[in-house]
Amino acid sequence: MSQGVTGFEVHDIRFPTSEQLDGSDAMNPDPDYSAAYVVLRTDDGAEGHGFCFTIGRGNDVAAAAIEALRGHVVGRPAPLTAAGLAALHRDLTHDSPLRWLGPEKGVMHMAAGAVVNAAWDLAARQAGLPVWEFLSRMTPEEIVSLVDFRYLTDALTPEEALKILRAAEPGRAERAAALRADGYPAYTTSPGWLGYSDGKLVALARQAVADGFRQIKLKVGGDLADDVRRMRLAREAVGPGVAIAVDANQRWDVSDAVRWMSALAPYAPHWIEEPTSPDDVLGHAAIRAGQPVPVATGEHVANRVVFKQLMQAEAVDFVQIDAARVAGVNENVAVLLLAAKYGLPVCPHAGGVGLCELVQHLAMFDYVAVSGSTKGRVIEYVDHLHEHFADPVRVVSGAYAAPEAPGFSARMLPESVAAHSFPDGPVWRARRTEDAAS
Amino acid sequence: MSQGVTGFEVHDIRFPTSEQLDGSDAMNPDPDYSAAYVVLRTDDGAEGHGFCFTIGRGNDVAAAAIEALRGHVVGRPAPLTAAGLAALHRDLTHDSPLRWLGPEKGVMHMAAGAVVNAAWDLAARQAGLPVWEFLSRMTPEEIVSLVDFRYLTDALTPEEALKILRAAEPGRAERAAALRADGYPAYTTSPGWLGYSDGKLVALARQAVADGFRQIKLKVGGDLADDVRRMRLAREAVGPGVAIAVDANQRWDVSDAVRWMSALAPYAPHWIEEPTSPDDVLGHAAIRAGQPVPVATGEHVANRVVFKQLMQAEAVDFVQIDAARVAGVNENVAVLLLAAKYGLPVCPHAGGVGLCELVQHLAMFDYVAVSGSTKGRVIEYVDHLHEHFADPVRVVSGAYAAPEAPGFSARMLPESVAAHSFPDGPVWRARRTEDAAS
Repeated sequence: MSQGVTGFEVHDIRFPTSEQLDGSDAMNPDPDYSAAYVVLRTDDGAEGHGFCFTIGRGNDVAAAAIEALRGHVVGRPAPLTAAGLAALHRDLTHDSPLRWLGPEKGVMHMAAGAVVNAAWDLAARQAGLPVWEFLSRMTPEEIVSLVDFRYLTDALTPEEALKILRAAEPGRAERAAALRADGYPAYTTSPGWLGYSDGKLVALARQAVADGFRQIKLKVGGDLADDVRRMRLAREAVGPGVAIAVDANQRWDVSDAVRWMSALAPYAPHWIEEPTSPDDVLGHAAIRAGQPVPVATGEHVANRVVFKQLMQAEAVDFVQIDAARVAGVNENVAVLLLAAKYGLPVCPHAGGVGLCELVQHLAMFDYVAVSGSTKGRVIEYVDHLHEHFADPVRVVSGAYAAPEAPGFSARMLPESVAAHSFPDGPVWRARRTEDAAS
Repeated sequence: MSQGVTGFEVHDIRFPTSEQLDGSDAMNPDPDYSAAYVVLRTDDGAEGHGFCFTIGRGNDVAAAAIEALRGHVVGRPAPLTAAGLAALHRDLTHDSPLRWLGPEKGVMHMAAGAVVNAAWDLAARQAGLPVWEFLSRMTPEEIVSLVDFRYLTDALTPEEALKILRAAEPGRAERAAALRADGYPAYTTSPGWLGYSDGKLVALARQAVADGFRQIKLKVGGDLADDVRRMRLAREAVGPGVAIAVDANQRWDVSDAVRWMSALAPYAPHWIEEPTSPDDVLGHAAIRAGQPVPVATGEHVANRVVFKQLMQAEAVDFVQIDAARVAGVNENVAVLLLAAKYGLPVCPHAGGVGLCELVQHLAMFDYVAVSGSTKGRVIEYVDHLHEHFADPVRVVSGAYAAPEAPGFSARMLPESVAAHSFPDGPVWRARRTEDAAS
């Protein structure tokens, strides 16, 4: 049982979601949800799956970035332990020429995340545990060893991280049992895409409450009068007791955000998400100070260094990790520890292709072994494309059920991979034939 | 004379610089300086050249990112005016699926910069002017129209930018004449690479002063005792009247930077460059406040939003633009205007492959039409690889001579492109043959 990594397959997979306006927002009018997908294989037949999420054009660039990491992976012993997974994460993010392409940001960093996450999928499968539980069973020392503390020590030292994790050791088993019994609270974005009519918005908002959700989300930022009307309709539809978050997808400058959110404030938005550039720490701080609605961001935050500053500058109320934007599980563990240090709730971003499947594991690990709480915390849920996964999320009565299958829930069905491969899978070939005929 | 863009060629070009340890620093021990190079061609035979600079592995990812922009360029009218160049810049940086891969950062953003810069090369050639002069002849309104003010208006509005440019209109002709007569001050990094022996450092430092330079730069951050010794030797070699900047290439956390620079301070470093992560605005501010040496950064700053915050947070004393990291001339014009607003000197980063050739134009434009001054300002100079360019920089008596040839000085010699193409150019084929034989 040598367990070396011998296989490294990269796939460009795209779904034609732009045809339904699912996923439309103020910055992204016509996304084709896509995954640059990587499969690791060991010489004894084990597999690990990971991916970058993109919205169509450029998914080939993400695939090329993953391909550039092949030499770091093939031929190495399968990383099955905290030490092995820490070493892989550092090799991928400290490679000096590849780091030059970021550093630690953009598509090269996302590619490192895809490969790191695939290794976690592999390791957890080999351990026979879902990733949330595999992580939650590690010792505080092992968890700290996963994190690259470079550029973090002015906000969080390894010793402080260890203290946080040790404080959460008592009760791990009880919280894991509670998760299995009750799941983890979810909210839904499905009613609120910008491309939807008012009638569809109201119907889906009512349906969300009927389905047990206590929070929904609307996209905003196209037109202020439209947003006020949609927010009013949503508030009427769900009543005062259900939270309505709004999401501007980076559409505004600071003064726009302050003006817009002051106008929406009477309808009591739960948070304003991505009001401006994800790089603008000081802008988020100014927006938070300039209007009454709490601020959330993170799905496009490039790395732990920017998350650190959002917390240091008191720029956010909710920390929105994304499973596939930063360098995988390891960097997200850093962000969870930072959030715990600063006492901020983590409310993960999800949706897209497979982001719900991945990020649920990180939120559940946070509950069991880091923050010890689900208070004020919710995982985003979007009911898109789960049917393509071998171990899809189960959301029941407004809560994510704890995954039981070993791994990271990252494996896409082989027939879905084949059908949606770009540009030569049958789904895309058929569209080209139609276009040529019309 | 239809002047549509019909040709879009992408080349992966690498130089085996790691064999000499030229360019070695604390983060990048063995770079092979490389360019992902793009050539635009119009139907009437005009050409524009641009590139991303990388340090070897992953240059193919940069080439793939440039390739992803082909559809935005081929078939459009050649962008020869401020309006055309502004429209191209926005099309490349606002493309929603490609923006998802950043947003506005990392290799996808660098690729947009390569294509934008190639278009500026083309436009300036067609105008028969070097880029610095082509830009300096535009009206304040045209220059403002080049800039994407999204995310900037809390620090700089179009109206403020216009005011800065109008204030610098008188004297443009005199300053252009002064540039032609005296050039623009340069400093040299050639003595200070980490891989060099003490003897080589001292000899090259003395040579730099003999050659007319009034500032040199040393790489630091490997080992504190080594750096103190090297700094002392350099100070003894050049005397008290020559500035010695030091450059840590992102090696430190905040407390490391404060400790290290406090130890080097007795030798009066002119600035500490890249003390920590280029994303860490608040970290740079803390380092600036925590020790006596002025702070410089920018070569890896991802975009105008991060530059804006470095200025808002009073985190830097010197702004180091790079011609090929952000989205080309247009975004660098934004940074020059921000620096003028905040009263900070711009001291461009250069070196690598062709970065000196490009960035001299931006510093000269800054002098003629934005800041109106060269006081406290210097352009980095490294004497590597200029022989591969058709219009190489000329540095005489410690100053860059103003380029006179039309364009952006970006065109690489066809024989250099052919020889260094990776992996199949003769330079790389020969190395593989040697490796196989040894």
